Amino acid sequence: MTTPATPAARALRVALLGCGTVGSQVARILLDDADNLAGRAGARLDLVGVAVRSLDAERDVELPDGLLTTDADALVADADIVIELMGGIEPAKSLILRAIAHGAAVVSGNKALLALDGPELYEQADAAGVQLSYEAAVAGAIPILRPIRDSLSGDRITRVLGIVNGTTNYILDQMDSTGAQFDDALQAAQHLGYAEADPTADIEGHDAAAKAAILASLSFHTRFALEDVSCEGITSVTADDIAAAAEDGYVIKLLAIAELLTDATGAEGIGVRVHPTLLPRTHPLAAVHGAFNAVFVEAENAGELMFYGQGAGGTPTASAVLGDVVSAARRRVLGGPGRTETTTSQVPALGIDAVRTSYCIALQVVDEPGVLARIAQIFAANGVSIETMRQRIRQDGPDGATTAELRIVTHRAVEASLAATVRQVAELEVITAVSSVLRVEGI
Amino acid sequence: MTTPATPAARALRVALLGCGTVGSQVARILLDDADNLAGRAGARLDLVGVAVRSLDAERDVELPDGLLTTDADALVADADIVIELMGGIEPAKSLILRAIAHGAAVVSGNKALLALDGPELYEQADAAGVQLSYEAAVAGAIPILRPIRDSLSGDRITRVLGIVNGTTNYILDQMDSTGAQFDDALQAAQHLGYAEADPTADIEGHDAAAKAAILASLSFHTRFALEDVSCEGITSVTADDIAAAAEDGYVIKLLAIAELLTDATGAEGIGVRVHPTLLPRTHPLAAVHGAFNAVFVEAENAGELMFYGQGAGGTPTASAVLGDVVSAARRRVLGGPGRTETTTSQVPALGIDAVRTSYCIALQVVDEPGVLARIAQIFAANGVSIETMRQRIRQDGPDGATTAELRIVTHRAVEASLAATVRQVAELEVITAVSSVLRVEGI
Repeated sequence: MTTPATPAARALRVALLGCGTVGSQVARILLDDADNLAGRAGARLDLVGVAVRSLDAERDVELPDGLLTTDADALVADADIVIELMGGIEPAKSLILRAIAHGAAVVSGNKALLALDGPELYEQADAAGVQLSYEAAVAGAIPILRPIRDSLSGDRITRVLGIVNGTTNYILDQMDSTGAQFDDALQAAQHLGYAEADPTADIEGHDAAAKAAILASLSFHTRFALEDVSCEGITSVTADDIAAAAEDGYVIKLLAIAELLTDATGAEGIGVRVHPTLLPRTHPLAAVHGAFNAVFVEAENAGELMFYGQGAGGTPTASAVLGDVVSAARRRVLGGPGRTETTTSQVPALGIDAVRTSYCIALQVVDEPGVLARIAQIFAANGVSIETMRQRIRQDGPDGATTAELRIVTHRAVEASLAATVRQVAELEVITAVSSVLRVEGI
Repeated sequence: MTTPATPAARALRVALLGCGTVGSQVARILLDDADNLAGRAGARLDLVGVAVRSLDAERDVELPDGLLTTDADALVADADIVIELMGGIEPAKSLILRAIAHGAAVVSGNKALLALDGPELYEQADAAGVQLSYEAAVAGAIPILRPIRDSLSGDRITRVLGIVNGTTNYILDQMDSTGAQFDDALQAAQHLGYAEADPTADIEGHDAAAKAAILASLSFHTRFALEDVSCEGITSVTADDIAAAAEDGYVIKLLAIAELLTDATGAEGIGVRVHPTLLPRTHPLAAVHGAFNAVFVEAENAGELMFYGQGAGGTPTASAVLGDVVSAARRRVLGGPGRTETTTSQVPALGIDAVRTSYCIALQVVDEPGVLARIAQIFAANGVSIETMRQRIRQDGPDGATTAELRIVTHRAVEASLAATVRQVAELEVITAVSSVLRVEGI
């Protein structure tokens, strides 16, 4: 037998518990992106099995034969990293405790379990010296728990305001933008798959309350359980409430709030609550639309921070799970994720000529027939297609002569072609000036 | 001699190089918040010295006698953690290399040095097995490097768009909101301390380009230097450009962009560039106002993410430095920051009655004299002060009877007092209905 020469030759045994919306995407990425993940983790991540309740159920993703099993116990007993995405309290809790006892690192996305029994699980993991991570349990794909725990570890958080439930944010956003009543907006959300057939956990605020407990625990270095959270849902918010709020410059959001409070005697405490809330439209959280999530953090030194992204969905949430898995693997391999950077590829740096972007070009042109056609020809000859073209005629000279301003926004094209187009257009004698050339992103 | 019984009894020697805007705040927090930091780090963080160029210079923060020294070499030779906030290339680079050689962990906020010589420094740190962290070098207080490196380690970033220079964002935002010309907006920025007397590095995009190189290196697991970044500043952006963009629904921002590109042959490369850019006003980055920074990340699985916060300033940037210091200390003490959570306090959970919030209350009232006074009396008796009160009269009944709707927004008060106020107001016979009670945040 030979000893592996490099860490990357090592393999870690990964067990996946649960194969629903998120679990199936985690399995897919572990299988499809294995080389990339091995480079990042410093070890191959071998998916040794996926525990499911029934072998016959339909799944979002086709998995190789033999990977599925109903024997979660056996899988956990033999894994280096256990990913728990079953949801619910049992058997998830027992399996996590067993994994910890075996010395496996655990990655979970189970907010209900963590909000209820988090303290017990954290203690067991600490005592065993294994890592228990759960970035996916709050705000889906958004990296929020690690920044709070690590990046803000030298600061003091005073307040956290979170839009942590996409279903309710979608409903309130619809009501705000269309004037719809709650029931109609809920139906639209169900139709689009943003709300479940039984939407109680979302619209009554229970899902947000579980996330609030987890956020509060991390932000204030204290352990909060679900019963510490005061909770009110959005079912009583009416179209009138939203219209009146809009008139006054407010928007209504369901917020999870955890904050440091001082009572009259100067004693400190933490209040954790979930309720529909008026926010000024200028607040960064007011711009969080649709099913997106965001967490707004106020800290003594850092000031105001916001973390924004997709709060749900199989693939986005799988990204958060795999970030935790790779971190856990690095720790196994390197004895800690403390290395400055793992350089796994050396993709070349390209000059700006290779970039594909779109241009917004403002031209002053002589107002005469055929000008537009000549300009359009140059764009076409360079393979640059035009998205919008606007012309504005101005009466300039004292002799009544008119000039025209053209504003052209292009589709994405190679930078070099765009630059050549502008050069050639500028040479046309019917162009009196190229007044500005700016690049456009985000369209 | 006795051996320390607990990790918290341990002490780490911290050397600070540089005592400018950020350095002086780092020193202040290390001294003022020592107990808290010790709890988080698992060891006392003893500031053993602050290296400065001259002992007589004026400083933002008063430091104890004997802490200042001009002998940076001696300080570095004897430290567990070295914080480099001198800026510039030398002597910062030599001191960092010496610290690494001594086995000290290094925390730096020196973007110019990291953009220029980052690759060499990372390699030396890796070879020596010590941690080199630099969260403060990009986007000040915003935790962006750690989320990219750790949280997204199981994903594949395809594009990063950043507003990473507060000065230029302030100038462009002023031009956008007031119609000012570039020169006037620059002067306003200088007047407010957002721009330096010599603003070249900011307005020509050099500062953003250094940050783009660091962001690109981490996002794409490749090492980019400053000369790989194509760079254009904002000096040629006119009030006309901004007005025309606004007409079309765009805003102009100076963006640092790093993206994965594929050429015609299918080969991949990374383009890194900084230039003024049109963004649709609905894009999350368009809502980043004033001197704030934000980094927008697109990843294959996670989708769109955004990180927002203060990009500069002594205290916010010090928060990022101290996050790195605490993480480095944890690693020294525990052999890795992998523990699930460090519980250092047990601040009590408070019920919602203890929360201080403000209410927006909508009341249907009988339209007769004295009603407002009676309502206002109840608010005053409960110690709740009114921020705004609006009345709208409606002709309702067929008999021409009028009712009035009152919308009252209160100042912050204890939840229990607000609830009591609403209860008492509802009992007044002149109130026909309490149509809604919602809490307000963010004002």
